[in-house]
Amino acid sequence: MLSTIKKPTLITFAKRCVHVEARIAQMGLDLPAPPTPKGTYRNFVRVGNMAFLAGHLPQPAGGGPMVTGKVGPGPGQMTTEEGNKAAEYCALNILSTLKSNVSNLDNVRIVKLVGFVNCADEFTAQPSVINGCSDLLGKVFEEKGIHARSAVGTNALPLGVAVEIEAIVEIDE
Amino acid sequence: MLSTIKKPTLITFAKRCVHVEARIAQMGLDLPAPPTPKGTYRNFVRVGNMAFLAGHLPQPAGGGPMVTGKVGPGPGQMTTEEGNKAAEYCALNILSTLKSNVSNLDNVRIVKLVGFVNCADEFTAQPSVINGCSDLLGKVFEEKGIHARSAVGTNALPLGVAVEIEAIVEIDE
Amino acid sequence: MLSTIKKPTLITFAKRCVHVEARIAQMGLDLPAPPTPKGTYRNFVRVGNMAFLAGHLPQPAGGGPMVTGKVGPGPGQMTTEEGNKAAEYCALNILSTLKSNVSNLDNVRIVKLVGFVNCADEFTAQPSVINGCSDLLGKVFEEKGIHARSAVGTNALPLGVAVEIEAIVEIDE
Repeated sequence: MLSTIKKPTLITFAKRCVHVEARIAQMGLDLPAPPTPKGTYRNFVRVGNMAFLAGHLPQPAGGGPMVTGKVGPGPGQMTTEEGNKAAEYCALNILSTLKSNVSNLDNVRIVKLVGFVNCADEFTAQPSVINGCSDLLGKVFEEKGIHARSAVGTNALPLGVAVEIEAIVEIDE
Repeated sequence: MLSTIKKPTLITFAKRCVHVEARIAQMGLDLPAPPTPKGTYRNFVRVGNMAFLAGHLPQPAGGGPMVTGKVGPGPGQMTTEEGNKAAEYCALNILSTLKSNVSNLDNVRIVKLVGFVNCADEFTAQPSVINGCSDLLGKVFEEKGIHARSAVGTNALPLGVAVEIEAIVEIDE
Repeated sequence: MLSTIKKPTLITFAKRCVHVEARIAQMGLDLPAPPTPKGTYRNFVRVGNMAFLAGHLPQPAGGGPMVTGKVGPGPGQMTTEEGNKAAEYCALNILSTLKSNVSNLDNVRIVKLVGFVNCADEFTAQPSVINGCSDLLGKVFEEKGIHARSAVGTNALPLGVAVEIEAIVEIDE
């Protein structure tokens, strides 16, 4: 009989459609407000099924000060772990920008990141720093979070931040 | 009567089709000749409805010397305003490359910029520098000039220029 | 008569279909194994008919050490020619990544490169360094190897390598 066919309940429907949002909640991630562009540009521009995101900075949720500093082995410089944490903040800001521009985060695939690490000339662990962003996006988007990436050093970044990360995403909606 | 229906005149037609060119003329912008690649590459490569532009340098119109130097607070370094002006020159070169590769600039949308500022280690106003390019492209292309953007510092650029800016555009033709 | 019409033989067919592979063999290029990502990302992510490649490092074939160092005029620094050779190694790694992800290299067009040169603050020949990659890809892919490009300096790169190069390609298959 037709009535025996198991229909998706609202709960299973919700599970299927809000994977990414649910994981963000389960992980207890504290998303900052969508970041304000630091110049005459926008944080998100869509072309067809792709979108290009501006360089995102490590702005903590709640409006606290940006994570500033230079990663390196010198006295008073940030450790690789502190840089990695800054890159996590960049990921949270990227997530916030995506959430405010896309109707359903389940339709997003992270395609490419470029991560710039404000660092000492002799610092060579840029990949370990930018992993802070890649790992978080990987956990949130799972197989759709696996992206191509460049990680490079730089001698100076806007507002003195430790890390700046831009993204290209695919949107299936 | 049909004759009372206002038909577009040649002038209104022209206005509709040459908005961008007209604004370039009205603003009195002095476009340099399409820049010569500084290596074994091209300045403009199209894929479908998108085009990727090479990093453009601050070459003034008329073939004068590139704007070289390092932006920063140190003695003999360029001011943020001088860097901003160099970024404007980059925008003029991007415009020149677009004009020589696209039949109608009205069909162009600026999607993404990456701006590299040759700067001192302690310089943090890269966004104010790259605004020189973003503002000019915004005035020329209006709503189709609003783009995503990354602005970062670097310790060295080709030929010692102060700013290098690359672009991704959408072309609707 | 129909029989006089010259039909493509298997050999001319093969020639037509393996141009790129044949040129790689003719040039005696020693491709390294597909490089291992240095963090939590992939080297190749495809979106429709485009693919985005991670920043590739100068890993010589055979698993020898990366080409490390800083290009510049100072004592103990690498020459422009040595940097150019490092960029060639980046190209070989890009080729290896493409070969392991695309069924036929003849279907690939190189669209865009961004090359980062680990260099002294006063170094200004980044284009000559990155030409090492552009020239090799141009020889291998001929007209489909002509790309847009940015070449910039940086004060530090992962693992201390001399050059890092990322790519965007079009794939017609």
